[in-house]
Amino acid sequence: MTKELLKMIKVSILGITGYAGIELFRLLKQHSQVEIINLVSNSKAGQRLEDVYPQFTDLGGEILKEYNKEEIAKSSDIVFLALPHGISQDRVAELYNLGLKVIDLSGDYRYQEKDEYETWYGLEHKYPQLLKKAVYGLVELKRKEIKKASLIANPGCYPTASLLGLLPLTKDKLLKKDSIIIDAKSGVSGAGRSLKQATHFTEVDESIKAYNITTHRHTSEIEGVLGEVLLEKKLQVNFTPHLVPMKRGILATIYVELQENIAENELIDLYTNYYKNDYFVKILSDNHLPETKYVTGTNFCHLALKLDSRTKRLIIISAIDNLAKGAAGQAVQNMNVMFGLDEKIGLMATGVFP
Amino acid sequence: MTKELLKMIKVSILGITGYAGIELFRLLKQHSQVEIINLVSNSKAGQRLEDVYPQFTDLGGEILKEYNKEEIAKSSDIVFLALPHGISQDRVAELYNLGLKVIDLSGDYRYQEKDEYETWYGLEHKYPQLLKKAVYGLVELKRKEIKKASLIANPGCYPTASLLGLLPLTKDKLLKKDSIIIDAKSGVSGAGRSLKQATHFTEVDESIKAYNITTHRHTSEIEGVLGEVLLEKKLQVNFTPHLVPMKRGILATIYVELQENIAENELIDLYTNYYKNDYFVKILSDNHLPETKYVTGTNFCHLALKLDSRTKRLIIISAIDNLAKGAAGQAVQNMNVMFGLDEKIGLMATGVFP
Amino acid sequence: MTKELLKMIKVSILGITGYAGIELFRLLKQHSQVEIINLVSNSKAGQRLEDVYPQFTDLGGEILKEYNKEEIAKSSDIVFLALPHGISQDRVAELYNLGLKVIDLSGDYRYQEKDEYETWYGLEHKYPQLLKKAVYGLVELKRKEIKKASLIANPGCYPTASLLGLLPLTKDKLLKKDSIIIDAKSGVSGAGRSLKQATHFTEVDESIKAYNITTHRHTSEIEGVLGEVLLEKKLQVNFTPHLVPMKRGILATIYVELQENIAENELIDLYTNYYKNDYFVKILSDNHLPETKYVTGTNFCHLALKLDSRTKRLIIISAIDNLAKGAAGQAVQNMNVMFGLDEKIGLMATGVFP
Amino acid sequence: MTKELLKMIKVSILGITGYAGIELFRLLKQHSQVEIINLVSNSKAGQRLEDVYPQFTDLGGEILKEYNKEEIAKSSDIVFLALPHGISQDRVAELYNLGLKVIDLSGDYRYQEKDEYETWYGLEHKYPQLLKKAVYGLVELKRKEIKKASLIANPGCYPTASLLGLLPLTKDKLLKKDSIIIDAKSGVSGAGRSLKQATHFTEVDESIKAYNITTHRHTSEIEGVLGEVLLEKKLQVNFTPHLVPMKRGILATIYVELQENIAENELIDLYTNYYKNDYFVKILSDNHLPETKYVTGTNFCHLALKLDSRTKRLIIISAIDNLAKGAAGQAVQNMNVMFGLDEKIGLMATGVFP
Repeated sequence: MTKELLKMIKVSILGITGYAGIELFRLLKQHSQVEIINLVSNSKAGQRLEDVYPQFTDLGGEILKEYNKEEIAKSSDIVFLALPHGISQDRVAELYNLGLKVIDLSGDYRYQEKDEYETWYGLEHKYPQLLKKAVYGLVELKRKEIKKASLIANPGCYPTASLLGLLPLTKDKLLKKDSIIIDAKSGVSGAGRSLKQATHFTEVDESIKAYNITTHRHTSEIEGVLGEVLLEKKLQVNFTPHLVPMKRGILATIYVELQENIAENELIDLYTNYYKNDYFVKILSDNHLPETKYVTGTNFCHLALKLDSRTKRLIIISAIDNLAKGAAGQAVQNMNVMFGLDEKIGLMATGVFP
Repeated sequence: MTKELLKMIKVSILGITGYAGIELFRLLKQHSQVEIINLVSNSKAGQRLEDVYPQFTDLGGEILKEYNKEEIAKSSDIVFLALPHGISQDRVAELYNLGLKVIDLSGDYRYQEKDEYETWYGLEHKYPQLLKKAVYGLVELKRKEIKKASLIANPGCYPTASLLGLLPLTKDKLLKKDSIIIDAKSGVSGAGRSLKQATHFTEVDESIKAYNITTHRHTSEIEGVLGEVLLEKKLQVNFTPHLVPMKRGILATIYVELQENIAENELIDLYTNYYKNDYFVKILSDNHLPETKYVTGTNFCHLALKLDSRTKRLIIISAIDNLAKGAAGQAVQNMNVMFGLDEKIGLMATGVFP
Repeated sequence: MTKELLKMIKVSILGITGYAGIELFRLLKQHSQVEIINLVSNSKAGQRLEDVYPQFTDLGGEILKEYNKEEIAKSSDIVFLALPHGISQDRVAELYNLGLKVIDLSGDYRYQEKDEYETWYGLEHKYPQLLKKAVYGLVELKRKEIKKASLIANPGCYPTASLLGLLPLTKDKLLKKDSIIIDAKSGVSGAGRSLKQATHFTEVDESIKAYNITTHRHTSEIEGVLGEVLLEKKLQVNFTPHLVPMKRGILATIYVELQENIAENELIDLYTNYYKNDYFVKILSDNHLPETKYVTGTNFCHLALKLDSRTKRLIIISAIDNLAKGAAGQAVQNMNVMFGLDEKIGLMATGVFP
Repeated sequence: MTKELLKMIKVSILGITGYAGIELFRLLKQHSQVEIINLVSNSKAGQRLEDVYPQFTDLGGEILKEYNKEEIAKSSDIVFLALPHGISQDRVAELYNLGLKVIDLSGDYRYQEKDEYETWYGLEHKYPQLLKKAVYGLVELKRKEIKKASLIANPGCYPTASLLGLLPLTKDKLLKKDSIIIDAKSGVSGAGRSLKQATHFTEVDESIKAYNITTHRHTSEIEGVLGEVLLEKKLQVNFTPHLVPMKRGILATIYVELQENIAENELIDLYTNYYKNDYFVKILSDNHLPETKYVTGTNFCHLALKLDSRTKRLIIISAIDNLAKGAAGQAVQNMNVMFGLDEKIGLMATGVFP
């Protein structure tokens, strides 16, 4: 518990009062190599963290600060941005240009092409050259690039669950590229902390719905990354998100067709091998299927595969915690890789169950 | 409220203490043309209904009885069976042979072929000739046959949601028959009232999972009915059920490919026209997508259609209450049709919301 | 279902889009003697009801209207106001003065004294003479007065549960007046439909808290009514409300000391006798304790009594549905009494369970 | 993270598959000074932990063992028993007699008098002399005794929340001894992992109830400890437990009368001072009231005080996580004290929120 001060990474967090921000704080507080320097929240500046989040009566004496780029640049080695997209764009550019390492949890730097961003987000992107420098922070896919990166676009929650379920199939031209259907289910924290009728308790409890069918932004994020790996610019997938009456968790049920006959156990071997160096991805054995509760509060992604011998379709189940591996946990994992640390530091705690 | 005694339909319910049984009781108590004669529960015989379900302190003075086929036959016009499959098989045969009209809520009489049943249920079917006489009680598909039927196989909950979403596409050879994927989500009451680790509160709350992937019995029920309509014996679909932490409700998200280019509004017209005489099926307008809360406690099925202009797939969303349109409500609707009554009697109450 | 038009009561509802308003609509739609004439919502005027509440795709073609007192007065026999307190005050006065019967679901007319209202609500009361004419609409206590009343102050949800639990003890000077402690637990719909951080799903799910300790307005409402019955102006109680992660329901756990030794079964007899003509109050038998699920969606109040032979305290458990007996159901019951109808009309449907 | 092997405490856990057992495992895995040697579960012996709890795919390779007292004694420094009461009694005696330090999470050793146990548990206590040696493991009350103890009776969940709320009032004869009323609300995990109708999801979700009114065993545990501190053998309290539809958490709302007039801020000072050396008890500031979500997954107890200036009653709110401070967390805290370690080791992780 005694942190060796010489090696400590100095961290600032922007957007501390949202769910991803507070999860970053929770995880970084447990990180043996991190010193948290600035907690920035324009909406709550001047308040103590524990007045916003009373669970931190002990750890939360920190006073939330207004955004001040010079102060952050002077005092920090790295900054995490848990801000709304659009707003994040400018902050990232400012802080990057002041020489900081930056991990952006918004969607602002997840595209290589300005056009693609503008089409799906309906906003201008003012920093197209910075888009080219940003590395997509899916560690299991981009570990080498992340090691050398200064700007990380931390992946979206749905894309993380979806891509981890699909990436092994990009090997050996196994995948029929036009066959991908992703039916994803998310807990309500994915919709954030700002108030909406759709996330009012009495509206969302005891009910399930689909939303943004065919139009959710994460569709393009999944297509972009998969398309890059498959060298297939025009890759298109069906992605349907659903809202589930629970706080955390994403379960993606993925349907694909394969180019050739292959047995289920060979597919399991393929996945096991693909992720053999990836601590946070687990292929569940035959006894179990993923449930979001198994990964709640953790940085793990659980996968299972079922090949339907009748229809020949492969069904892949992928479960993550949307706030952990789908946001803050993955961001910490990215930081660990960027600083040459063991990927697991600060991320070892098991989920709370039940 | 004063029921005219001459015309009253005399009803017995078997399996009254399960969730479908108690929902039958709730609905039939509101039915202006029904007199409930026998409530049968072997496990709780001799107890008062209100001792099992205290919400019926007022209506529940009835004493639950042991099963006695002669007594039931003598006193009843129709009998509803809300029993486990396997057990239901014999009871149906006995009561049918005593001249009663029978509505069976189990899966025992939903197949035309003995073999199909035995493959998917792993049990012998002892009454293959009765299988031929049973009518599949999806009113929107079989209204004419139901009017003349004496034995109704009340559809399963998942098949009801799935088939109502797919049936209009069987017109005009629109549907690519090998393209059907049904990703369905159910509340926990679908798993019944008997105790299981998987439905213990602390295990199922705040989590979602898929189960019985590629092997759920309702797969074959959907395939059988659709195959019959499409004159396609070997029709095969992918059906994946999920368990959602809520009490009631099924949402089916259905992905299909079409044989030809057709606009979304034409598809909506097709559906609207197909169901123009079906009170309980509603195509939601452009402003809304189905949510299970909209149909909780009601016999309605809500549908919405989205055509993905990029992938050309059609996504159909179908929502029902698994215990109402998916079980007891549909059974009452069947009874109404069998007795020449207005289909809506006893089923008009709006759901309780929030 | 064919309502006899000559005798129909013409009803207007103000504040139709809130939870109490929509529950009024649900119940009155099932009422055989009611015709709903105006649905008023200033915030949603011009929209169709089904666009706000898609569960009414069938019943909801009505267009919501702006408030127009002359139009309402001309077309209606009675008007229900489900508006925020403060706003309701003026509307009630206007409509009452136009000769309408009025049932006000807000807290604006629940006090006899202007001062009391102003102390607890922090607002001026502009109609002190109307306060004197209003009858507190707890049917079990004021049935005779309600029959002749034109203005009903429909009781609060917590006071309904609390008073029904306490009223029988006002007989025979049984109750130690300074001993009353009410520990009440409510579902989230009690906080209404407007958005608050405290009722955001991810904030309220999986947690329980007390709120407004010693300061909740319903404290004074309970004290006022009990004090009137007991002829004890200065009666004071402890009332502590809690927020429970469920949509509907109130459970009040009430602790009192008695003036004399009396056996538990004598107390049960006292309660049974006190409520012998009150259909909607049930004393549960020894086998059961109240659970809010038993009354969800119904107008019932379930009670149970336990006398602690060691501490001599009596513990009373009282359960209602806050939106039904605690708001809209009780309002319909009041209307039935005002118009000389059977109290139960429109309120007979059993709750939906599970 | 590298545990220094020389100083490691060797731990065995009995009853690993229940909720308290698995929470012990979760916490001890994060403990820098502990090595887990034996995981004992007679019902699941031979299985891998990860086959029972798939969230431990990574940590859970351990094979569950049958109970073997010699093996445990030889290999362990301390043993935690998370077994049903009655069964625990014998195991504790056996292991204690083999020279092990023992922490018993059941109710078997929480009384000093055999009679008291037998009255409330309805079972013979075979080891009355061991009852005398057991120390009640409420660290905030018995830290000194725990340091020297070999046998700890880990407190019940409700008594922990209740006693921490009441103990400061035992100073200065403040408390009216016959005035104590504890109205407690618990999440469903408190009922354990074995299947019951009452904890079936569809029965407990969306409902609240009281249970075991006047007869819950924890009543006597609270009375015993408070009575000992107050030197008042016959102390009697009212304790009413409730079941809330959430997984974890206890909120106790405590009503007491005081012997003298004292201001609220003086009471807050009294509490703050009483707990000044107790890291895990926090008096919330004026801005906040306890909510169970603030302590979920943590070993904290949050307290707040409200003095009702009208009725003169003091209302104390106390919140804990029933599985952490109410069971496994407190057990680890006890172990830390017994071995002279910093109380906080292994218990520093913040709760997961939302």
